[in-house]
Amino acid sequence: MSSEPLKDLSRLCIHTITTRPWNIEEAAVNYSAAGVKGITVWRDALAGRDIRLTGEMLRNSGLSVVSLARGGFFPSVDKQKRSDSIDDNRRAIEEAYKLGTDLIVLVCGADPKQPMEESRKQIFDGISALLPEAKAAGVKLAIEPLHPMYADTRSAINTISQANEMAEAINSPFAGVAVDVYHLWWDPSLEQEIYRCGKNKHLFAFHICDWKSPTTDMLNDRGLMGEGCIPVRKIRSWVEKTGFEGFIEVEIFSNIYWKLDQVEFLKKIIIAYKQHA
Amino acid sequence: MSSEPLKDLSRLCIHTITTRPWNIEEAAVNYSAAGVKGITVWRDALAGRDIRLTGEMLRNSGLSVVSLARGGFFPSVDKQKRSDSIDDNRRAIEEAYKLGTDLIVLVCGADPKQPMEESRKQIFDGISALLPEAKAAGVKLAIEPLHPMYADTRSAINTISQANEMAEAINSPFAGVAVDVYHLWWDPSLEQEIYRCGKNKHLFAFHICDWKSPTTDMLNDRGLMGEGCIPVRKIRSWVEKTGFEGFIEVEIFSNIYWKLDQVEFLKKIIIAYKQHA
Repeated sequence: MSSEPLKDLSRLCIHTITTRPWNIEEAAVNYSAAGVKGITVWRDALAGRDIRLTGEMLRNSGLSVVSLARGGFFPSVDKQKRSDSIDDNRRAIEEAYKLGTDLIVLVCGADPKQPMEESRKQIFDGISALLPEAKAAGVKLAIEPLHPMYADTRSAINTISQANEMAEAINSPFAGVAVDVYHLWWDPSLEQEIYRCGKNKHLFAFHICDWKSPTTDMLNDRGLMGEGCIPVRKIRSWVEKTGFEGFIEVEIFSNIYWKLDQVEFLKKIIIAYKQHA
Repeated sequence: MSSEPLKDLSRLCIHTITTRPWNIEEAAVNYSAAGVKGITVWRDALAGRDIRLTGEMLRNSGLSVVSLARGGFFPSVDKQKRSDSIDDNRRAIEEAYKLGTDLIVLVCGADPKQPMEESRKQIFDGISALLPEAKAAGVKLAIEPLHPMYADTRSAINTISQANEMAEAINSPFAGVAVDVYHLWWDPSLEQEIYRCGKNKHLFAFHICDWKSPTTDMLNDRGLMGEGCIPVRKIRSWVEKTGFEGFIEVEIFSNIYWKLDQVEFLKKIIIAYKQHA
């Protein structure tokens, strides 16, 4: 049995990258005016800003700061780069703390010059190294398994099963999983693995969009919910069966939608959210 | 421990689509002159030809006809289309028989207008319906699990685990699995699932190429072995651990390589085969 349609916007969160033409101040004004209640902030949106004040501005606009995107990119054949990556993730934790959010989404990374097993080990080591700072800042880290078409350079964690295993191995309330329908919809074990994730209390975030047929760009051709073949509402029902009541985050990278008037695009997002999420 | 380099071309098979600018007669002459011993024939290469005579021509050129590519595409929301697809697969079995090969590779299909579970059921039903003709013709059917980036329209079978399960459920010596490194390299369970496949006597074919970083086209930007991040030789060692001694099939769709002089490309294939397969 699927979930009921979402009748209001109380759980709607939008990623700043979804409306990339807007800077964060424009995003705040427009999301707020449309009744959106959550925002996930991409780090590039904070460039040149006082992060504490930006967090206050967002809250004053009626927005919950759901998460900071993104940390990760741990693996490299180069030791110095691995060490630099840990430092960068430490900065991300500090930014999340200043911004006033308790969650960072991790795109874990991969280096095509080494075996995936090695990249996975470096991801485990990277997250483990960050846990003390994460705990101290009260910031959780969500491993986002990425679609296997990104296995070469973006993430060596490509199924929710792998993300669950890694979160179980790390075994901390500060390490969990972000479920994004775009990356995971094709997986026949998705339902069971969502339940496993929930049971572990590791289901930290839920991202939505759609997979268009045809998809013309491997990165920036995501669809609005309902435009493609992902059973978004069915997957939401699995997520909610675990007790998840958090924000439903719209994360769309789209060369097409970035060209639209973003006010019009935001209206489309809200319609798609109510009809298909 | 990985396999030894391949020192001769006795197990090298090339798909006609790999050298798409050549018609099948040109492919036969050139593969043969280069010492290639196997050919997998794509059905479009047979258009307008007498299939029996073409099979004879290939054998007279010293080539084993390793398989016919491709059958499949069973799922559809439209009942008539499903029925047409079965008919088309029957024709493929007849073509394989006339050509003198005992294997058809199946790209199983998917219809984005219906749930993947439904597509998978239709794939199971489609293959099951073909088994009597397949047995009568002495032609085996190999389920090729396709990369999850093709899950919307090309195949609802996206992991070797799923292909193994389906072949086990069909439970016939005429239904097995084609292992293609391009589709499966990222899967952390690949090694174990190859062993499971071999134990079942379901490992019917082994296809190679490479995954380039970056990949610029979702369909036609495959790399030569060694150009990307797939551990081709390591995967071959797993395949051979099962006792597989069949052809190693080079299947490369590439807008870049199709533009090259195909004699030069064939030389590159042979070098890459010896160095990286």
